Amino acid sequence: MQQSEHMVQGFKASAVKAGLKKDKGLDLALIFSERETAVAGVFTTNKVVAAPVILTREHTKNGRARAIIANAGNANACTGKAGFNDARRTAELVADRLGIGSDEVLVASTGVIGQPLNVDNIAQALPALVERLSPDGIPTAARAIMTTDSFAKISHFEGHAGGRPYRILGVAKGAGMIMPNMATMLCFIVSDIRIDSHDLNGVLSSSVETTFNRITVDGDTSTNDTVLVMANGMAGNTALTEADSKGFARGLETVMGELAQMIVRDGEGATKVIHMEIKGAYSASDALKAARTVGNSSLVKTACYGQDPNWGRIMAALGRADIVMDEEKVDIWVNDILIVSAGLGKGQEAEKKAAEIMVRKEYTITIDLHQGNFEDRIITCDLTHEYVSINASYRT
Amino acid sequence: MQQSEHMVQGFKASAVKAGLKKDKGLDLALIFSERETAVAGVFTTNKVVAAPVILTREHTKNGRARAIIANAGNANACTGKAGFNDARRTAELVADRLGIGSDEVLVASTGVIGQPLNVDNIAQALPALVERLSPDGIPTAARAIMTTDSFAKISHFEGHAGGRPYRILGVAKGAGMIMPNMATMLCFIVSDIRIDSHDLNGVLSSSVETTFNRITVDGDTSTNDTVLVMANGMAGNTALTEADSKGFARGLETVMGELAQMIVRDGEGATKVIHMEIKGAYSASDALKAARTVGNSSLVKTACYGQDPNWGRIMAALGRADIVMDEEKVDIWVNDILIVSAGLGKGQEAEKKAAEIMVRKEYTITIDLHQGNFEDRIITCDLTHEYVSINASYRT
Repeated sequence: MQQSEHMVQGFKASAVKAGLKKDKGLDLALIFSERETAVAGVFTTNKVVAAPVILTREHTKNGRARAIIANAGNANACTGKAGFNDARRTAELVADRLGIGSDEVLVASTGVIGQPLNVDNIAQALPALVERLSPDGIPTAARAIMTTDSFAKISHFEGHAGGRPYRILGVAKGAGMIMPNMATMLCFIVSDIRIDSHDLNGVLSSSVETTFNRITVDGDTSTNDTVLVMANGMAGNTALTEADSKGFARGLETVMGELAQMIVRDGEGATKVIHMEIKGAYSASDALKAARTVGNSSLVKTACYGQDPNWGRIMAALGRADIVMDEEKVDIWVNDILIVSAGLGKGQEAEKKAAEIMVRKEYTITIDLHQGNFEDRIITCDLTHEYVSINASYRT
Repeated sequence: MQQSEHMVQGFKASAVKAGLKKDKGLDLALIFSERETAVAGVFTTNKVVAAPVILTREHTKNGRARAIIANAGNANACTGKAGFNDARRTAELVADRLGIGSDEVLVASTGVIGQPLNVDNIAQALPALVERLSPDGIPTAARAIMTTDSFAKISHFEGHAGGRPYRILGVAKGAGMIMPNMATMLCFIVSDIRIDSHDLNGVLSSSVETTFNRITVDGDTSTNDTVLVMANGMAGNTALTEADSKGFARGLETVMGELAQMIVRDGEGATKVIHMEIKGAYSASDALKAARTVGNSSLVKTACYGQDPNWGRIMAALGRADIVMDEEKVDIWVNDILIVSAGLGKGQEAEKKAAEIMVRKEYTITIDLHQGNFEDRIITCDLTHEYVSINASYRT
């Protein structure tokens, strides 16, 4: 069979309407591998951890898995022991249907917190879900995990390793509660590369650090964040050389980086993607703190919405970022337009040019602190009327 | 002369239009004491510090002062050496006019960051400003320091010390960039009590900690925050007994507490004041961290705007607050309605009652962590469409 770019050999996927979402759309997705896969996962750092995350963390510990069952509409978070039992029962139901072990099933949920998950709905929907499993089902699965997302997020990559071509295909959902150290973000990645789970874990961790942990929408961190990678080895490659490993890491980073950017672009109510680049920081930690503080400032984000190069707000955010800084050393650019030099504004002409750039949907704000050689970046979005509308009325 | 409640003996005040505000309203205020006063000040913790703050910090060091000159429309922040010279020149001009030392003049500014202060405008306006000094001028001065504030903030207190009655009268401006550890907040307090500046400093510091450092509007901290207290001793009281000192401290805390609440009530776009109370925290620092994290969460604040008891967002915010917590120990109330017990929702009936309370303009959310005996609180407001409108268009 000819493979489309949204297929990876040995993987099937499907989605159905299980009645968990208020809008009655697709809300239950299944991804299944014909063969056992190596698996690696990264999960929320929130101390309030959703039941499916607790379960899936357990199920990924041995590095092996076969399936991911994911629902939208209900986060199964803050649901206590009953919630954990619901997550476990979901895994068992899926395992029974697929004839695999329940510890080979990974469970993920997203949606409203604090309401019991209707597992009966899932049980009823399962026969159709398994029935519809298809090699080209991944895009449909991507649609089913959406909550306030406005578009499905898919990214793919093709590489060569051990003499064989392989693919990486990832889907994600994001939208709100997005902040470094993960988000209400689910990301599932499948690959046919042959790699052991220990190596897969290492590559995943470093890729998360440079991609999903460098985006922010609103500074809130969810209870359900989950990134899972499954690799089933069907590419048939021999053991990975160092160059192969690097190539795969680059591929994974590319896919995750693209998905991360899509999440910001689709941030709740966002109209703009802003790359917040910090240069010349005194330490790596200062660089990241500066990027996060400026990138999460409501005043900076509303100024971006207003297309106003209001650099005073950037300076004020830097000043409370708890970093080594001297006001009179700071330079700030909007793309290639220098608007602050040595802590002082470059005047109306520069700001006018910057304002013209800020009309665009995507641009970069670069801040050089001139304190050292460290740099970092955050991708953020603007704070808009629509963000408030979405979040004032999400449940009601 | 019969004193109104907005007068304190020995103090005069006035305000004029100096052309510093875009809307051409009152923008320059002067407060003057006939006699030398004891003075104490608390200033922004932002590392980017406005020129007037640098100057006024110097001028309060010897504990003596006579006058406060404050302008709105221009923050004189991020203006470099020229900005500092502008602040100093302002103090000198005022000193010359009033026939006092320039180090007895305290300067405060609020408004747009990064633009040169038009001191010539101030110089031209000074004769009229001094001319209009009047014992009942404080309310007018309160109006002149407003930026995006929608109402002038004034509070007063009357007490007895050393056998004599005394008064405390305070004015403040707030609105945006408000967050614990001060705000774009100016607060000037005058009293006729006789107290030495060392004691005044101590009382001021502790009162700031329980009032202005316990409010938040948007998590941003300004470069210009200033709280000044001047006491001119004209009440004629003898040295303060311990009881007198406590009484004065209570009075100052009352005035500052009222002003702080007014600032939240008038938070940019705010429609509701929410008292976020934390109980049962493991440590004092945990109690404050929890209050601040929940009180600053955009998702919690938009839920308040939407009058939605979306406690899952409160739990998620607690989970990222970096505190000792067990999800299954958390109780949450809206006023007296328990909506979360031992980490689990109390159901639709309770949420319906809570939603009815959340329609009000002011209510309390209480969170008991059941980890220890520490408690703290933050007063916050909701995040609204109007906040976005104000901040997307403030400069332009």
